[in-house]
Amino acid sequence: MRQRSRSWRGAGLTIGLVPTMGFFHQGHLSLMDQAIKLSQRVVVSLFVNPTQFGPSEDLDKYPRNEDRDIRLAEERGVHCLFMPRPEDIYTPGHQTWIEVTEVSKGLCGRSRPGHFRGVATIVAKLFNIVEPDMAVFGEKDFQQLQIIRTMVRDLNFPVKIYGHPIVREDDGLAMSSRNTYLSPEERSQALCLNQAVGLARELVLEGCRQRSEIEKKVRDLIASYPLARVDYIFIGDPETLKEPETVPSPALIALAVHIGSTRLIDNGLIP
Amino acid sequence: MRQRSRSWRGAGLTIGLVPTMGFFHQGHLSLMDQAIKLSQRVVVSLFVNPTQFGPSEDLDKYPRNEDRDIRLAEERGVHCLFMPRPEDIYTPGHQTWIEVTEVSKGLCGRSRPGHFRGVATIVAKLFNIVEPDMAVFGEKDFQQLQIIRTMVRDLNFPVKIYGHPIVREDDGLAMSSRNTYLSPEERSQALCLNQAVGLARELVLEGCRQRSEIEKKVRDLIASYPLARVDYIFIGDPETLKEPETVPSPALIALAVHIGSTRLIDNGLIP
Repeated sequence: MRQRSRSWRGAGLTIGLVPTMGFFHQGHLSLMDQAIKLSQRVVVSLFVNPTQFGPSEDLDKYPRNEDRDIRLAEERGVHCLFMPRPEDIYTPGHQTWIEVTEVSKGLCGRSRPGHFRGVATIVAKLFNIVEPDMAVFGEKDFQQLQIIRTMVRDLNFPVKIYGHPIVREDDGLAMSSRNTYLSPEERSQALCLNQAVGLARELVLEGCRQRSEIEKKVRDLIASYPLARVDYIFIGDPETLKEPETVPSPALIALAVHIGSTRLIDNGLIP
Repeated sequence: MRQRSRSWRGAGLTIGLVPTMGFFHQGHLSLMDQAIKLSQRVVVSLFVNPTQFGPSEDLDKYPRNEDRDIRLAEERGVHCLFMPRPEDIYTPGHQTWIEVTEVSKGLCGRSRPGHFRGVATIVAKLFNIVEPDMAVFGEKDFQQLQIIRTMVRDLNFPVKIYGHPIVREDDGLAMSSRNTYLSPEERSQALCLNQAVGLARELVLEGCRQRSEIEKKVRDLIASYPLARVDYIFIGDPETLKEPETVPSPALIALAVHIGSTRLIDNGLIP
């Protein structure tokens, strides 16, 4: 992979990277489109990274369809689909980890201990293998994007980071490989995430600045969906991911909700 | 710095990096010589990295002589002396750290908590800023060298790591910027470190394989120097830095000793 990148670099071509865990949906494809717009050669990595899954999480059942992914990436105009094996990425005795301490603390970092350590470490590895000029990440994983931006700044990675807006189904559900786990009934109740984002936005734009008041109303909305169980509701600063009681401007509303046994996330910026 | 490196790279030149904290002695100069032999352009970084010093350590009094260092590097044929300011390296809100867990545990890692986290982090930053093909580190800091090698392997840094043998004064004292702290009496008693390395080597070569027995004899030797106080004596595996009771082959003897208020280290490989 590095040889391929270096031969492109040597020919004066810029390289964009889109790190993914595969099972491509329209969200992934739009990241690829953006990378193709911004750079002359595009590498998509497909690696279901074991170190970002907790022991009780869905690593083993994470959805995969490599043949379809290869076809979709090719059709999209991706120049290289990088599919390393786990044993090539984590050699015996692997013991080096990158921790982005502050912005990893809340939100998904609280519910998924070790998750962002695994994310930061694999992304650093991919940056060092592919040596891209830029990389594109989806804004659905907003905290992940902030962690990557912070890591790149703090460790001086020579990679420009782009965030790409959430791509949604027609009814508003944020695209996610995990949506495939949902039963029809769950699929319909999963709309509560996007509705929660909309409600928080509405309340702030109407003038409400009390975090706890907005959180309570969002919690009540989700409670009206019998299959939904809140993991967290965050309303706070999109940069620092801190949550002062007075809602900052701009603000981020981000949440994780279990729909049946599937954990989904969504978020939105409030200007 | 990165622009300079990239223009060299673009011209087809290989780049070597020698990370230092300055106050150059013959040890540093021999690292520069090796880098000059191995690559076409040599960058020496001079940065007294605050994050690798503990709160009670000698950051404020660490010896400095930038004018002399500039002259020595220039005379040696170094192409670039990179001297960033602390505020350029650690921007406000810095929160990203690299931990190399296993090989950081014993030896200096036990006496200096957080030290190797600071070392790994600054070296990763320098790699990302300078983008060298290779880097040279002294073997006096043997554990540091193992940590860097492990980090490079685990994070796929595209940098080849070379270790350079310890350079000693005529009487055997390992060169160190910290030797400048020693009074004449301390300077003479500091020889106990190299003598301890020699004694351990002798005992092993004579057939002794009991770690605790060798350690006791080394400890007794150092105890005969009234100004010396042992921090640690390590006799074990040079790769894993583990210490089985039966001395492995090859073995590393490494130790840290306080001479008065100055902490010195030394080591040697036993084939």
